[in-house]
Amino acid sequence: MDKIKVGVIGGAGYTGGELVRLLLFHPQVELVSIHSNSQKGKKVYEVHQDLLGDSELVFTDEINKNVDALFLALPHGEAKGFLDNNEFLPSTVIIDLSTDFRDESDNFVYGLPEINKSRIMTAKKIANPGCFATGIQLALAPAIAHRFIDGPIHINGITGSTGAGKKLSETTHFSERNQNVSIYKLFDHQHLKEIKKTFHELDMEFKNNLLFVPYRGNFSRGIWITAYGTLDRSFEEVKDKYQAFYSDEPFTHVSDKEIMLKQAVNTNKCLISLQEKEGQLVIYAAIDNLLKGAAGQAVQNMNLAFGLEEKAGLNLKSIAF
Amino acid sequence: MDKIKVGVIGGAGYTGGELVRLLLFHPQVELVSIHSNSQKGKKVYEVHQDLLGDSELVFTDEINKNVDALFLALPHGEAKGFLDNNEFLPSTVIIDLSTDFRDESDNFVYGLPEINKSRIMTAKKIANPGCFATGIQLALAPAIAHRFIDGPIHINGITGSTGAGKKLSETTHFSERNQNVSIYKLFDHQHLKEIKKTFHELDMEFKNNLLFVPYRGNFSRGIWITAYGTLDRSFEEVKDKYQAFYSDEPFTHVSDKEIMLKQAVNTNKCLISLQEKEGQLVIYAAIDNLLKGAAGQAVQNMNLAFGLEEKAGLNLKSIAF
Amino acid sequence: MDKIKVGVIGGAGYTGGELVRLLLFHPQVELVSIHSNSQKGKKVYEVHQDLLGDSELVFTDEINKNVDALFLALPHGEAKGFLDNNEFLPSTVIIDLSTDFRDESDNFVYGLPEINKSRIMTAKKIANPGCFATGIQLALAPAIAHRFIDGPIHINGITGSTGAGKKLSETTHFSERNQNVSIYKLFDHQHLKEIKKTFHELDMEFKNNLLFVPYRGNFSRGIWITAYGTLDRSFEEVKDKYQAFYSDEPFTHVSDKEIMLKQAVNTNKCLISLQEKEGQLVIYAAIDNLLKGAAGQAVQNMNLAFGLEEKAGLNLKSIAF
Amino acid sequence: MDKIKVGVIGGAGYTGGELVRLLLFHPQVELVSIHSNSQKGKKVYEVHQDLLGDSELVFTDEINKNVDALFLALPHGEAKGFLDNNEFLPSTVIIDLSTDFRDESDNFVYGLPEINKSRIMTAKKIANPGCFATGIQLALAPAIAHRFIDGPIHINGITGSTGAGKKLSETTHFSERNQNVSIYKLFDHQHLKEIKKTFHELDMEFKNNLLFVPYRGNFSRGIWITAYGTLDRSFEEVKDKYQAFYSDEPFTHVSDKEIMLKQAVNTNKCLISLQEKEGQLVIYAAIDNLLKGAAGQAVQNMNLAFGLEEKAGLNLKSIAF
Repeated sequence: MDKIKVGVIGGAGYTGGELVRLLLFHPQVELVSIHSNSQKGKKVYEVHQDLLGDSELVFTDEINKNVDALFLALPHGEAKGFLDNNEFLPSTVIIDLSTDFRDESDNFVYGLPEINKSRIMTAKKIANPGCFATGIQLALAPAIAHRFIDGPIHINGITGSTGAGKKLSETTHFSERNQNVSIYKLFDHQHLKEIKKTFHELDMEFKNNLLFVPYRGNFSRGIWITAYGTLDRSFEEVKDKYQAFYSDEPFTHVSDKEIMLKQAVNTNKCLISLQEKEGQLVIYAAIDNLLKGAAGQAVQNMNLAFGLEEKAGLNLKSIAF
Repeated sequence: MDKIKVGVIGGAGYTGGELVRLLLFHPQVELVSIHSNSQKGKKVYEVHQDLLGDSELVFTDEINKNVDALFLALPHGEAKGFLDNNEFLPSTVIIDLSTDFRDESDNFVYGLPEINKSRIMTAKKIANPGCFATGIQLALAPAIAHRFIDGPIHINGITGSTGAGKKLSETTHFSERNQNVSIYKLFDHQHLKEIKKTFHELDMEFKNNLLFVPYRGNFSRGIWITAYGTLDRSFEEVKDKYQAFYSDEPFTHVSDKEIMLKQAVNTNKCLISLQEKEGQLVIYAAIDNLLKGAAGQAVQNMNLAFGLEEKAGLNLKSIAF
Repeated sequence: MDKIKVGVIGGAGYTGGELVRLLLFHPQVELVSIHSNSQKGKKVYEVHQDLLGDSELVFTDEINKNVDALFLALPHGEAKGFLDNNEFLPSTVIIDLSTDFRDESDNFVYGLPEINKSRIMTAKKIANPGCFATGIQLALAPAIAHRFIDGPIHINGITGSTGAGKKLSETTHFSERNQNVSIYKLFDHQHLKEIKKTFHELDMEFKNNLLFVPYRGNFSRGIWITAYGTLDRSFEEVKDKYQAFYSDEPFTHVSDKEIMLKQAVNTNKCLISLQEKEGQLVIYAAIDNLLKGAAGQAVQNMNLAFGLEEKAGLNLKSIAF
Repeated sequence: MDKIKVGVIGGAGYTGGELVRLLLFHPQVELVSIHSNSQKGKKVYEVHQDLLGDSELVFTDEINKNVDALFLALPHGEAKGFLDNNEFLPSTVIIDLSTDFRDESDNFVYGLPEINKSRIMTAKKIANPGCFATGIQLALAPAIAHRFIDGPIHINGITGSTGAGKKLSETTHFSERNQNVSIYKLFDHQHLKEIKKTFHELDMEFKNNLLFVPYRGNFSRGIWITAYGTLDRSFEEVKDKYQAFYSDEPFTHVSDKEIMLKQAVNTNKCLISLQEKEGQLVIYAAIDNLLKGAAGQAVQNMNLAFGLEEKAGLNLKSIAF
């Protein structure tokens, strides 16, 4: 089979770089074009310096339309304008990593494979979920689908600094972030919208209140989710249904043991663990925000849309430590 | 005035060392004895190496009974036995940092100054609160006293590694802890007992369920608390009452702005911030687990018991970064 | 071609785990046996928890002799005894990661591919270099071979905590190591022996004094090397010769730009950068101590010994952040 | 005695903030004015948030000339212009923390108390040393004064991120700096100039070459120095002379044991340790870059200039962990 010709738009940012890291080593992909206005003319490894020795590709500001798959890693709000101004072949699979199409407007399919796999497999336009959104949906999807939780669902999550991207800011200044803890967007994170949309699809009568406390953590990669609410069923049933829900999923695993964040870092996995106590069902989830929470899941979606093995190019060695 | 003669029992551990750091520089204290069976004969700065240049004191395994104040920094469960086997003068103020007397058995007074100040000022035996317990109680005390929250109270907290002490363990192994997140003692932390006791004293009809999720953080010092529940009153009233509750407190401050953990690290402060959203009252608190959560509060209690200025020896420069 | 049947002895430690991470995803390998006395009967992912979802293999205390390649990841000093007590087929390729055979005793070949590639390709017994030894040798090999440096060579290096392994100790206690810097084994690191042996092979008259200051860093993975000495040739020649020396090497790259440690972390690369100033040639090198410094290089050696592509199974996605 | 009236110019940066932290708690100081053009009108604790509860002072853009001591914490290059445009009483002690007067131009005295104490005690204008400069000079001063080292002196040092100040930059971006190591200003650090000036004063014939490799470390506070060169005397003599050199110094201590960075962090100490090996004298030094390396030393200089106890306001509790 010919390799899939792939382009990346917005290749100089953190998500764009992570896409390049994955696509360069993907056995069925030929990465033909990496677009960046800000870095055009530079070798990709001059910006993503860890790629030294892996590729001699150069950033371009020209848009290569001769691609089978196109990843958009643009700032939120810019993907829509980009597609308005640039037409691609109807056969081109477009995978957007911004928030712009997560409402499934313009025929985009929401790219959370554990929920929408069959639709993704025939999609030409895929809206890749947000990082927190991925962790929270995977933590809760079986519970919502089976109505395990009665009443409000309490969620807290901790994100690594790479979630805030390459842009310099006070909250990502090393002297400030290091050894620190802080909160942002209390109960109001922008990802709640896409989460609720999915939950309504899993349960048309879904109406649990979601109370989400997002933390900034003093680490670079990873998202941790703790979610809980009043358990409305036997814990044995919960465990069985969680295992069943994800039994065919190559990346999402329900652990018998307690989990910790680093198990998932630098992989495309979502690891989940369950606990029952004080009448509450408690669900933990761990992902890498740049992989399962962004670029890894985008490649997983590409694999599905092209009928490749779902794990192709995604057998990633964990950092472990 | 003569200086207060002070002894420390269990001076080789993390809390014992922090007590020594404070007591050496306390203007009204003479630190006369630092007890340690394991380190006897060594200079204190050989174990607490940061004290080089500050003191030539030597650990002893003899118990000096000629002290005005005695701090017990023994492992949980050992303070009671120690006091059974060693009698001190009735005038000696004994401040125990373990869990052994936090139920106020044996005439101990629970040493949370913001709640029990008048009792502490006349106490001879003081049971110093736990670190998470201090943060959670100070975050919630005004809300409990004024019954601001209806129904369950959701608490999550993150602790630095020093909370686990000097003992080596897998969860404090650098390669494991670094850049990681994990959970322990879900809904079942040992500090909930002393917290509930205080809350019952603040409101005899207190019956809110407390659901506490404790995290292990990848930093050395500090405890962060987020607590919330359904708000039963106007937020203006809440803010006023919180300010009033702590208006005379030298270490506990209600901030108008968002707070972050490092504001409190290496100080004896408890910083609190309030938010109202989605019908919930949300309270954040930040302390240093070894200071306001242990040794700093113990010295504050000593100051109160001896009629000293409450802040004596506790004007500590924050680490800030 | 049939897959290579591989066994790992000592699979429960940090290096053993890293070998398992690599071997499970290696396209030409079948990992048939993971030996551990301490963990026998446990699933491998119960110990190396990041492997959940990757394998159902179980630790065994039986020694599977039906393997084509065997990795020994035993504590230093135990490999020799193990091989004395266990005989393997002459065709079995044995790769030892300890110090035991780095003197090339017992027909072992020193497994630094950039220096010994042709010998490794025909070896049955390979002694894998130490982590600092790998970094220092790759930083300096061209300079030694071409006698670029006159007089003593000054080296300082910083290692991540995983270099100290899984064993608990005060210097790897999170509360101690975090945000700290310290020195160990000044001028006397055990790796100097194997380094000097190689340098004598590169230049029979090698006699530069090596002064090596090793630091403990507050990070988990990676080794940084700075090496310098008085430059005895034109810097242009140095750059050309370094590029030439490593031009065919798939993992070792000489960068035109300044490098930083994280470029190499979670890869099998060695990145090198050169500078000339004040009459000194300064060489920087960055590797991942568990990969190019241990398990990654061991797999590279296996690839060479079996005539596989040198990079097989080693196209690893960098952590980058 | 009346308190010393003190003003700070440039109070919004990291060094300015650290000065404020020290001066607020200094028993003989009244901090009367904190100048900042960028933050004028804001409460000091709105910018240095850890100061909440410590002071209600407000930043001003007016220059209060009615001060006994004035600290200039302006960007390098701006102090000179400031003093050209603003005249103060001849009695006002001016302590500048920038590089502008470290050449002792305009009657400034170089404010390294361990070397220049008597001159500082009568000075009206004091140029506070740089952070690396402080560490390196204190590490080497006795060796230079006594000509212990023959030939070049090799120095490497690691600095925390706060040395780079509040300004946002790629090398202080958390995602980049975290878990990373890099080098800057090889052999060419701007502090070498003031170091050499001092060394020439200690030994008019000083001519050792200084080769300094500065590292960026992944921690917030602290500077570590390793310095070595060929030992020209007995190690016993070296130790005796080092002890003697610093015997009367309240902040600089020569340790019998190995030291580590965190012993000095959040204190005004400089800790030094000595080793002899391979014919080399090796000296380690640890300071806090914002304290002994900046604001702490500035307050020490103020104490000296006003005849106060040298440690007044500087008995700081170490972070220890």
